[in-house]
Amino acid sequence: MAPQPTRDDQFSFGLWTVGWQGVDPFGGATRDVLDTAEAVHRLSDLGAYGITFHDDDVVPFETGLRDAAERDRILDKLRKALDETGLQVPMVTTNLFSHPVFKEGGFTANDRGVRRFALRKALRQLELGAELGAKTFVMWGGREGSEVDVAKDVNAALARYKEVVDLLTTHIVEQGWDMRIAIEPKPNEPRGDILLPTVGHAIAFTHTLEHPHLVGVNPEVGHEQMSNLNFTHGIAQALAADKLFHIDLNGQHGPKFDQDLVFGHGDLLSAFSTVDLLENGFPGGGPRYQGPRHFDYKPLRSEGTAGVWTSAEANMATYLLLKERALAFRADPRVQKALEEAGVLELSQPTLSEGETLADIKADRTAFEDYDADAAGARHGGQVLLDQLVVEHVLGAAG
Amino acid sequence: MAPQPTRDDQFSFGLWTVGWQGVDPFGGATRDVLDTAEAVHRLSDLGAYGITFHDDDVVPFETGLRDAAERDRILDKLRKALDETGLQVPMVTTNLFSHPVFKEGGFTANDRGVRRFALRKALRQLELGAELGAKTFVMWGGREGSEVDVAKDVNAALARYKEVVDLLTTHIVEQGWDMRIAIEPKPNEPRGDILLPTVGHAIAFTHTLEHPHLVGVNPEVGHEQMSNLNFTHGIAQALAADKLFHIDLNGQHGPKFDQDLVFGHGDLLSAFSTVDLLENGFPGGGPRYQGPRHFDYKPLRSEGTAGVWTSAEANMATYLLLKERALAFRADPRVQKALEEAGVLELSQPTLSEGETLADIKADRTAFEDYDADAAGARHGGQVLLDQLVVEHVLGAAG
Amino acid sequence: MAPQPTRDDQFSFGLWTVGWQGVDPFGGATRDVLDTAEAVHRLSDLGAYGITFHDDDVVPFETGLRDAAERDRILDKLRKALDETGLQVPMVTTNLFSHPVFKEGGFTANDRGVRRFALRKALRQLELGAELGAKTFVMWGGREGSEVDVAKDVNAALARYKEVVDLLTTHIVEQGWDMRIAIEPKPNEPRGDILLPTVGHAIAFTHTLEHPHLVGVNPEVGHEQMSNLNFTHGIAQALAADKLFHIDLNGQHGPKFDQDLVFGHGDLLSAFSTVDLLENGFPGGGPRYQGPRHFDYKPLRSEGTAGVWTSAEANMATYLLLKERALAFRADPRVQKALEEAGVLELSQPTLSEGETLADIKADRTAFEDYDADAAGARHGGQVLLDQLVVEHVLGAAG
Amino acid sequence: MAPQPTRDDQFSFGLWTVGWQGVDPFGGATRDVLDTAEAVHRLSDLGAYGITFHDDDVVPFETGLRDAAERDRILDKLRKALDETGLQVPMVTTNLFSHPVFKEGGFTANDRGVRRFALRKALRQLELGAELGAKTFVMWGGREGSEVDVAKDVNAALARYKEVVDLLTTHIVEQGWDMRIAIEPKPNEPRGDILLPTVGHAIAFTHTLEHPHLVGVNPEVGHEQMSNLNFTHGIAQALAADKLFHIDLNGQHGPKFDQDLVFGHGDLLSAFSTVDLLENGFPGGGPRYQGPRHFDYKPLRSEGTAGVWTSAEANMATYLLLKERALAFRADPRVQKALEEAGVLELSQPTLSEGETLADIKADRTAFEDYDADAAGARHGGQVLLDQLVVEHVLGAAG
Repeated sequence: MAPQPTRDDQFSFGLWTVGWQGVDPFGGATRDVLDTAEAVHRLSDLGAYGITFHDDDVVPFETGLRDAAERDRILDKLRKALDETGLQVPMVTTNLFSHPVFKEGGFTANDRGVRRFALRKALRQLELGAELGAKTFVMWGGREGSEVDVAKDVNAALARYKEVVDLLTTHIVEQGWDMRIAIEPKPNEPRGDILLPTVGHAIAFTHTLEHPHLVGVNPEVGHEQMSNLNFTHGIAQALAADKLFHIDLNGQHGPKFDQDLVFGHGDLLSAFSTVDLLENGFPGGGPRYQGPRHFDYKPLRSEGTAGVWTSAEANMATYLLLKERALAFRADPRVQKALEEAGVLELSQPTLSEGETLADIKADRTAFEDYDADAAGARHGGQVLLDQLVVEHVLGAAG
Repeated sequence: MAPQPTRDDQFSFGLWTVGWQGVDPFGGATRDVLDTAEAVHRLSDLGAYGITFHDDDVVPFETGLRDAAERDRILDKLRKALDETGLQVPMVTTNLFSHPVFKEGGFTANDRGVRRFALRKALRQLELGAELGAKTFVMWGGREGSEVDVAKDVNAALARYKEVVDLLTTHIVEQGWDMRIAIEPKPNEPRGDILLPTVGHAIAFTHTLEHPHLVGVNPEVGHEQMSNLNFTHGIAQALAADKLFHIDLNGQHGPKFDQDLVFGHGDLLSAFSTVDLLENGFPGGGPRYQGPRHFDYKPLRSEGTAGVWTSAEANMATYLLLKERALAFRADPRVQKALEEAGVLELSQPTLSEGETLADIKADRTAFEDYDADAAGARHGGQVLLDQLVVEHVLGAAG
Repeated sequence: MAPQPTRDDQFSFGLWTVGWQGVDPFGGATRDVLDTAEAVHRLSDLGAYGITFHDDDVVPFETGLRDAAERDRILDKLRKALDETGLQVPMVTTNLFSHPVFKEGGFTANDRGVRRFALRKALRQLELGAELGAKTFVMWGGREGSEVDVAKDVNAALARYKEVVDLLTTHIVEQGWDMRIAIEPKPNEPRGDILLPTVGHAIAFTHTLEHPHLVGVNPEVGHEQMSNLNFTHGIAQALAADKLFHIDLNGQHGPKFDQDLVFGHGDLLSAFSTVDLLENGFPGGGPRYQGPRHFDYKPLRSEGTAGVWTSAEANMATYLLLKERALAFRADPRVQKALEEAGVLELSQPTLSEGETLADIKADRTAFEDYDADAAGARHGGQVLLDQLVVEHVLGAAG
Repeated sequence: MAPQPTRDDQFSFGLWTVGWQGVDPFGGATRDVLDTAEAVHRLSDLGAYGITFHDDDVVPFETGLRDAAERDRILDKLRKALDETGLQVPMVTTNLFSHPVFKEGGFTANDRGVRRFALRKALRQLELGAELGAKTFVMWGGREGSEVDVAKDVNAALARYKEVVDLLTTHIVEQGWDMRIAIEPKPNEPRGDILLPTVGHAIAFTHTLEHPHLVGVNPEVGHEQMSNLNFTHGIAQALAADKLFHIDLNGQHGPKFDQDLVFGHGDLLSAFSTVDLLENGFPGGGPRYQGPRHFDYKPLRSEGTAGVWTSAEANMATYLLLKERALAFRADPRVQKALEEAGVLELSQPTLSEGETLADIKADRTAFEDYDADAAGARHGGQVLLDQLVVEHVLGAAG
């Protein structure tokens, strides 16, 4: 049986996940609108500790633009539901992709008016997030990109992106908010090619900013796997660089459209190594992820309301089961022996000895001239045993 | 007819390209060893301005390790050929992947002895490069990665990678060499997942280093396309960040094994936009790439010696033809009008006006409350016309 | 300049292509509904010879179901536009994917009621197609598939698929219609995995049917390229097996969501070899494709109405330019020499001589025991020259 | 603990799997040659029931060509090892890819001499297989393909392929051998695009042959997954068409080079559904696979001899564990209820009732005119529950 989630598990859900109505490129909605308050209560009952949302998930675009009073009324209902349940809002984000105005981009649209509009929309949501106590402001630039290479000046686009992020971080600093920005990379869809397509590109971009320490990434399982990249490697590099500010957990079956499956319902072994990293940290120590375990998935379009909640639960149950497996894996003496034999911990040892210089190692004939490369090349790696131990632990067959 | 290359075109070739004997995972060599001096002379005759090489391309691994005199003799032959032809060596790199000793990594091998050996081997090649006047030292970490997530501590691996790069850049600084390091990313092959898999990840890594300004990237067309990423976007981000230190041009047909086709023999429209960026720069101005146009390709295994030289020529001919197309494209008044209509140049205009603050734009109702988002959303993008103008220019049909 | 299309070129367009309003998974419509009669007239003016449509493209789902009189009225308007323009309807197809009823499949839905409904809907469209003179009835089973392996009995699903196709072909035979069915394969999207995912799987399926000669395939460029398969190889195998009944031309940038770009705006070299095959046939002769050149693309969502027609024209212009290039390629003496040297025509020669038996070749020592495999292995392939000749012809630089 | 394999499990291994020395495109051998007799004994001890091999795995190419006596001596050693262990040879196959002579193809090489040589080589191996009691002759055409579309006449190539297969099946029939041919599809590597790239294309091809019932497919997990196709769907279609003659089990991480990982070490959930199909059959009944469970994998290059045998065992252990999980899954009452609710078994019910005709259903208003499509579209699919039950069973957490 799957363990029951508690608030200590820090599970959070986007309102747009359970609220997804099933519109896809080839078909219309298969489910009714889900009431926000109901979603909050239901997620609370299931064991989540927080919810997250785009501005338009709660307040419709037109209302948000034209009817401040109605917007307040709707937000009050949200605040009430949060109060009643005690759920937190660890993260908010802005919808800069649904309305046609963003068809050619938001912060990097060729059209300057669109960019100004996008900035204002994001600023409003940033302020709302600050008020609700959100620690993370996610920026997913789904429409920042192109289908036609020559139709987008990438240098200018990145400059405009930087302009906005610098404005927002400066604002955060000036307001004294305890808030950071996390960029969410994605390689494509809805644009043919999206700027900052991977965790790496997004981190690289943060180093061009005015307040780089305030800007990190929000990697999503499926987004990296759409490029067939190793998700665990991706978050590991982010973590090692103190850039893993938030995480989006879900499932994907390789390079195809963005599936947003339940966490673990895609590449299960990769989900295991992700949970292992999140819960156990690097084998040799190092930075740890402390933030929410945020699910950004879509209940299958074929499902009715029952499937919405079954799938919400499934995300948490699978995570907790993988956590059990990961803890048992690390505790298993066979695993410890195998890690040792494969030299996994040896990698934490610097290549130069303490105090050793380049000149020293250059003079060390045992390192090169007298090194028996053939013997080292024949040494047993011990990696497949580790892989099989993973598989047996994942299968619950390692006892 | 294709234009003839000259040295001003700065075309360079890896010796391992024309020298590839055709060994692949399922078959042995189909071509004989190519004599280094012959390769240098032949490439010179064809119009190249430089050659590049891994240590082992010129001096066999065993010789390099055990027989200093023979190594000198071989290198002298290389120097002589360079002298005779006037070819430059703009870049060198180290083979840390062929010998079994590197089967589990070089600088990030779990085995510390292997790491020390790799460092020494790289240092020797760095010194040779400096002596030969190479301005770029490429590091392709083909074996730095894993097939088994739990068998590699990524945090430790990146720390080891950093250790080595810091040592080498410090050495460069201390020696006063005019040389920079370029990391060459690749997502996989020969390892299941390679660390620093894309241009983005590699740039991100450079920001963790002691001398970040000395370390950039060497993107390869096919390597990014193996992840189905937009190559031109990738080098554009690198260029915008002053990280495009070198470039590897070739061809690839999407996510599959590393094909190393002739430049342009893969995705021709992407090759066009790459050449357009390299030759014309960003539409709105910005950093320009000034380095070598380096071909890192493999003559098809089915080819005999004739095909080796036909393919070497084909790389340059295709580049020059695309350059002609790119120059004509930018000069075409229809293109200029279409760029204007699509707002491509408008993106260079900052989103805030000069002197405008966040408070100012927040007070500007025309930016948000009174903005006609629907009208903006209905505006014509003009992107497909640009794409068709590209196609017609590429097809030589725009006259 | 691009040549002007004429009706002899047999260009046809789906009404859903120019009529696409831009709804994608992350955003709503950016363009208004396009009037059917206007679309017909406009396409006629641009040089198309035919239009194709799903039932719901012309008659809304609800109307089609509940209001026979209104359906007739709408269809009369279509007939009138066809009469006025002289456009043909070479193909029709059924929408079994947009309405929620099809969320878990059409002909292979687990729910039998849905399957019966789908059959009736298809039958009605088949009859309309017959009345309008359509020669091809396309079946794209976008919702026939699964996200969850165990939730779909593939054996039963294929049996149900066969049940429907057998019923429809039997009906065609009984009615004496000059009509064939073409199955359109696609690997995924909107379902996680679609049944009959490639040209190969679809052809294989036709051989399980009652009237296999009446059922072929309708390959789409982007659909095969979403699996990174070689589109030209795919249609070549279909053509060789007399199964290429219809074709959908468009563009795609490799394994990602279904882009439906303008033909040629994706992989241009592949587009060339496709046009070469369609216009010139196999080098050694064989079956020829005689049907419509049908474009199944989407004008970019960023485009206004102007972009709709620019892109419609672009499909035809690019096709015609590639046709010019392909004719010149085959006529070029250098190409003919290169084809000869690469042995391309030699492949039409049977491996056994006329009258030779297996026993004969077994006794022929020159074929094996005395064969100089090493010499043959060293022979020059001549393939890269052909590739470069293609590139130079495509670039319009072969003159 | 993993269950112990027995011969009843029908596990077989290619000699080339445990014998792989680790040569890859970027590096040389990391392991010594493995003695054939030792491999046979070791695999027997581990619980395999059979071994399979290419001709050159046992008898080196040159020996096989020039030294009949030595070939006999080597084959006698193999026969002896088989006798000693009681291992069977359920399948043999021919190496038409390693020697340079096959660089441009085997049966479909442009060069007719190569084709004749390939035919003789295959024929010799077919005869050896027949003598050793092999029931399946696998044809993997790794070199049958192209990198350059115009350099291969696909129609002629398929005709040559057919010529050879027809010759071989005719020979089988004439000799009265109890043997069938299984074509092994692969999309690419070592060729840029291989002919018959997927299970579907290969099955389609068999229908063009003289003895189609004697020719089926040998799908390999990783080969289909290199195109990101659903492997279980692929073998399901093959099984439904009575074409699943043999199977190659291994692991792969999506579209990249051919990894040949241990079975289950790639996509574990897909491995589950594959084992579920092989062991439990289709939910609604239908054809069953009875043949060997053949592992075609490569021990990681980083491994020494110990890793060779650990990995060999891992294949079988993982298979048996997944079999346990699959049996428990089907037996679980919650699963049975969920299958029922998702209508999985309903799909076995024909869409038309017994005796119902197309005219009948056309007259049935409940099927269309009076059908409540909206209500049906709102019905709950129940698929995500099934997916979660799979995950919990796979994780060994369903008890």
